[in-house]
Amino acid sequence: MLIVMQAHASEEQVRAVCEKIESVGLKAHSIPGAQRTAIGITGNQGIVEIGLEEMAGVQEVICVSKPYKLVSRDVKEENTVITFPGTDTTIGGKELAVIAGPCAIESREQAFKIAEQVAKAGARFFRGGAYKPRTSPYAFQGMGEAGLQIMAEIRERFGMLIVTEAMDYESLEQVEKYADVIQIGARNMQNYSLLKRAGRARRPVLLKRGMSATLEEFLMAAEYVMSEGNYQVILCERGVRTFADHTRNTLDLSIVPAVHRLSHLPILVDPSHGTGKRTKVLPLSRAAVAVGADGLIVEVHHDPDRALSDGPQSIYPDQFAELMREVGAIAPIIGRSMAAPVAAVAGASR
Amino acid sequence: MLIVMQAHASEEQVRAVCEKIESVGLKAHSIPGAQRTAIGITGNQGIVEIGLEEMAGVQEVICVSKPYKLVSRDVKEENTVITFPGTDTTIGGKELAVIAGPCAIESREQAFKIAEQVAKAGARFFRGGAYKPRTSPYAFQGMGEAGLQIMAEIRERFGMLIVTEAMDYESLEQVEKYADVIQIGARNMQNYSLLKRAGRARRPVLLKRGMSATLEEFLMAAEYVMSEGNYQVILCERGVRTFADHTRNTLDLSIVPAVHRLSHLPILVDPSHGTGKRTKVLPLSRAAVAVGADGLIVEVHHDPDRALSDGPQSIYPDQFAELMREVGAIAPIIGRSMAAPVAAVAGASR
Amino acid sequence: MLIVMQAHASEEQVRAVCEKIESVGLKAHSIPGAQRTAIGITGNQGIVEIGLEEMAGVQEVICVSKPYKLVSRDVKEENTVITFPGTDTTIGGKELAVIAGPCAIESREQAFKIAEQVAKAGARFFRGGAYKPRTSPYAFQGMGEAGLQIMAEIRERFGMLIVTEAMDYESLEQVEKYADVIQIGARNMQNYSLLKRAGRARRPVLLKRGMSATLEEFLMAAEYVMSEGNYQVILCERGVRTFADHTRNTLDLSIVPAVHRLSHLPILVDPSHGTGKRTKVLPLSRAAVAVGADGLIVEVHHDPDRALSDGPQSIYPDQFAELMREVGAIAPIIGRSMAAPVAAVAGASR
Amino acid sequence: MLIVMQAHASEEQVRAVCEKIESVGLKAHSIPGAQRTAIGITGNQGIVEIGLEEMAGVQEVICVSKPYKLVSRDVKEENTVITFPGTDTTIGGKELAVIAGPCAIESREQAFKIAEQVAKAGARFFRGGAYKPRTSPYAFQGMGEAGLQIMAEIRERFGMLIVTEAMDYESLEQVEKYADVIQIGARNMQNYSLLKRAGRARRPVLLKRGMSATLEEFLMAAEYVMSEGNYQVILCERGVRTFADHTRNTLDLSIVPAVHRLSHLPILVDPSHGTGKRTKVLPLSRAAVAVGADGLIVEVHHDPDRALSDGPQSIYPDQFAELMREVGAIAPIIGRSMAAPVAAVAGASR
Repeated sequence: MLIVMQAHASEEQVRAVCEKIESVGLKAHSIPGAQRTAIGITGNQGIVEIGLEEMAGVQEVICVSKPYKLVSRDVKEENTVITFPGTDTTIGGKELAVIAGPCAIESREQAFKIAEQVAKAGARFFRGGAYKPRTSPYAFQGMGEAGLQIMAEIRERFGMLIVTEAMDYESLEQVEKYADVIQIGARNMQNYSLLKRAGRARRPVLLKRGMSATLEEFLMAAEYVMSEGNYQVILCERGVRTFADHTRNTLDLSIVPAVHRLSHLPILVDPSHGTGKRTKVLPLSRAAVAVGADGLIVEVHHDPDRALSDGPQSIYPDQFAELMREVGAIAPIIGRSMAAPVAAVAGASR
Repeated sequence: MLIVMQAHASEEQVRAVCEKIESVGLKAHSIPGAQRTAIGITGNQGIVEIGLEEMAGVQEVICVSKPYKLVSRDVKEENTVITFPGTDTTIGGKELAVIAGPCAIESREQAFKIAEQVAKAGARFFRGGAYKPRTSPYAFQGMGEAGLQIMAEIRERFGMLIVTEAMDYESLEQVEKYADVIQIGARNMQNYSLLKRAGRARRPVLLKRGMSATLEEFLMAAEYVMSEGNYQVILCERGVRTFADHTRNTLDLSIVPAVHRLSHLPILVDPSHGTGKRTKVLPLSRAAVAVGADGLIVEVHHDPDRALSDGPQSIYPDQFAELMREVGAIAPIIGRSMAAPVAAVAGASR
Repeated sequence: MLIVMQAHASEEQVRAVCEKIESVGLKAHSIPGAQRTAIGITGNQGIVEIGLEEMAGVQEVICVSKPYKLVSRDVKEENTVITFPGTDTTIGGKELAVIAGPCAIESREQAFKIAEQVAKAGARFFRGGAYKPRTSPYAFQGMGEAGLQIMAEIRERFGMLIVTEAMDYESLEQVEKYADVIQIGARNMQNYSLLKRAGRARRPVLLKRGMSATLEEFLMAAEYVMSEGNYQVILCERGVRTFADHTRNTLDLSIVPAVHRLSHLPILVDPSHGTGKRTKVLPLSRAAVAVGADGLIVEVHHDPDRALSDGPQSIYPDQFAELMREVGAIAPIIGRSMAAPVAAVAGASR
Repeated sequence: MLIVMQAHASEEQVRAVCEKIESVGLKAHSIPGAQRTAIGITGNQGIVEIGLEEMAGVQEVICVSKPYKLVSRDVKEENTVITFPGTDTTIGGKELAVIAGPCAIESREQAFKIAEQVAKAGARFFRGGAYKPRTSPYAFQGMGEAGLQIMAEIRERFGMLIVTEAMDYESLEQVEKYADVIQIGARNMQNYSLLKRAGRARRPVLLKRGMSATLEEFLMAAEYVMSEGNYQVILCERGVRTFADHTRNTLDLSIVPAVHRLSHLPILVDPSHGTGKRTKVLPLSRAAVAVGADGLIVEVHHDPDRALSDGPQSIYPDQFAELMREVGAIAPIIGRSMAAPVAAVAGASR
């Protein structure tokens, strides 16, 4: 259920409605918009007959039939723009957000080498895995907190924001401490306990689509995060599993306009996992921006043949620079732009 | 890497080899077989050159090229038979294991009503969800520990063993306390932290196949559990996601002989989730037993129209009784049998 | 639209209704049932307002909302049983229909060797490809009419009925001349011109499910054949294309009860193409019979390593004999039976 | 097998090699390139030991291990550019090829109305179905030859080239007479008899990818056409069948760079069938051009609500004009361009 407040409803009126809702054991989510505030109600409810319609400042009470509420454009018409205090970098705004870096942090040297090059090419976000969900228990599982510390240094040095994956409560607590964006991987898209925990974190959450998730399941996973009070959710398409065998996954770009139609949340595209092949990353990055994605997340490695994971899908730093040039040229055609490289880098070698 | 001991190697020799392995920072898994003991080695290893081949009692050192080791028939030729102390019930033995009960425990009354009827029909295991992973955060999420307590009472009353799902560390700890088998659901098949935690539990683990998991990924998920020392793993096919829309999922029965060929672990089939339709549960149960499954896990509800979850796929108690008759007739054709109903029930109303 | 006649409507009344329908440019399909006759109307129609409801002998006029009509149980409640004049063999009756033979007819010697063994084991139908749809234009494309002649000899010698594939008008004309059942392959399931041509043939049509056909598309393909007047259609599940890679295709056994629910047509299962692996044919054959299939179509080859096509999925003659024993034991459990071997063979070596 | 001739081999030498090949019952396909000529050998062959290596002008004999030959870049390094005599229009050259028009020709008036608007917007090709493969035998099956005649008039009037589908021998014969490009639909991608017949036609063939065709199967279907001597093949991605339900099919754009890597043939993208939704056609058209497609095939209808087929996926003429502007802006970024509108239209109202 959804309460739409009048355009000029006072904060007090909004608060009163929320209190009424919570007085009967439900949760109220106040979602301020440019025009007016909406209040989503969640909880184990049927129809809530507590006289909300008659309260001051209430314009309309809507019974939402779709299973998702807080993620829906019905609740919030304007796009959600994720901001990062102390920077002019955004996700979901006019500028494309580009996240780049190695699959896994392997060493301080490796991470810095790659960070320098992707920063120069214009990436505003640095990615790198410290906790790696691997198909085999015997494969490299990541450096853990040491990896997070290296990324924190990279933020200091290059001014990039840090995006990294959390796999469970323990790693989420660590990631929350060090990173700017908490990534939830495809394999955990329906790990509801982890989603709820991320919903209680104070960082934006980058949620990757599960390998066989429908659009509705994808949005419901975001709803899990939001239902706990964290409205800073960024979706990410990373390819789905099909019979097709010329790429590791089949990148489903049509989900980008589909998400934009139903939801106010931003959506990025991961052409690296989406194809699993270095030679496909550049063309699919162009396609992702052309289809309207709010940005990209790309694996870059200076020596992919020796990468401890996902080497075959990592591109070289100069291929990444070319990628930035090409998607930067496509951006204006659909009313987007590329941000200038971060000052720390533009201002060169400190 | 895999060490095969000689047929008459002493326990001391086995211990010595294990110690040698662990002295270089690896993990040794001693796996006793009917004929001889094998020792699996896991850890972040390449080739281990520590002179194992020359040790007393060692017959052969095998470099296993497949990514799975402990789940493999190469490591253990004989079928794994899960036993339950104090009972003659098994999973993976000659007798088919049938697990039946409601999707979710909704109340003591509901659970007892169903338990009585499935026990009478011959089920040796009772299933019921106390912690439910639901697509929507607003759907019924289970009764939690209260549900577990009801199931513990059911074990007392009807002599059935209890199977129920754990979703995270907290619920796993609870489930471990109350249940006989810990179920890991399809959505968590690649929740590696949970798998590792289950690998440290002292209960058998029923691992459901992920909605788009390949056979190799499925076996690797079992490997995660086993790599932590819990070798009591039961696999379960529950349907995969395809384009086909006449059932909720597509039940992939061919994975049963495929698992039996590669692995020593038992595999059950879940025709309820596998089809999502009541009218398909009986025929697919027959097919599952005919294809060679080690048993079934079936949702039964006495009033499915009012079930809080998965009503449309739950069968009625009398349909379950018919199911037991039919699969019981097929069992001997492939060298299996059905167990007699548990004494508590056969001996009737205490 | 569908006209249901009264139970005691005369043939004359049925004829009058048909004539009325055809007088306005539509096609009438009179479908006699055990209780009463139904008349299906096909053609480019909307609602037909020509006063059919008021005609003598008409009980009801039903607007069928499902896209399929003639295949539907709404039109014909009783199962369609395909009969073969001069024999007691049926498809869709109480007895399971088993079709066996090599993928392709390679020579008279090869075909006779296999035919003798499958006949002995109890197969009533012999299959063999004379026209082969191959993925590569450079692969063996079949012996053509010479292959058909060999199969005609096999019918003479062993009393088995002949099933073979037609790929186009030319081959269909030949197949119609020599064979007892015309097979339409999976790749041609939506070759509507070929389906219509098969609808004008005087032989039963065995229609294989397309590799990614939904249940509705499958039934609509059968509707194409029936809309031309040939009501002798046998459906066949042969596996669908999914991400799963442990078998060549994923055999979707749940379609068997789904077809039986919606349609009166018989449905067979092809475990050879459905799995693509010899070791999976026997267990999936048992499963297919247990799920309720009306029969099997199985590839058998005496020397599969040298087969010109599909060797890896062909079973040996003695494996086929074992298959017949096992499915013969399952059949009675679901109210079916196996036919005795044909007399020509039972009476042994002429 | 593949014969690579020396750079300066004479025509006579090429002819001699071809004659030698055909003298042993095989087919020789001489494929002239910018640098040198290659000769493909097809037929039911193993290794051909007839001394080709020693013949004058022969540089190399290559045993091709991939199943496709004539479609391969190994045989022909340069892109195939389809030309149309009497025009400067191409497919596979620098200019993007855009094919637009209604799903089906419904009337002269409808076709002309749409043709005028797509021509004005810059389409060089007009598409429209005269023979329609429909899932239901009772749906509109197309106007047949009358539809072809209308399209021939459209070519006269607007100077656009005509693309239309053939479903069988009969319709192919008609289409060959009237159209500039013969389309083979997705459902017929493995209708090998039709592919061979198209291989004997004198028109370029537009081959759509089957709904569940792998890249290799797709290329092999093209190989069927080419093996009969017609090398003018245009591939077309039109979406594949997956579990995803937010679009009718899942458009697999990664196949575009995959085809360009392996084959010299041009590949178009059909965003109309690829998504099945009007609102997705424009963004996916941009993505298709950005990924590197050689052009688009788009359904346009002036009154889609009343279209006899595929209304929901047809865009309005003004949306098409916008599409042309946007993809025209993307084209130069990847080294392509849009052709100017055809003269007949540019020169305006005759």
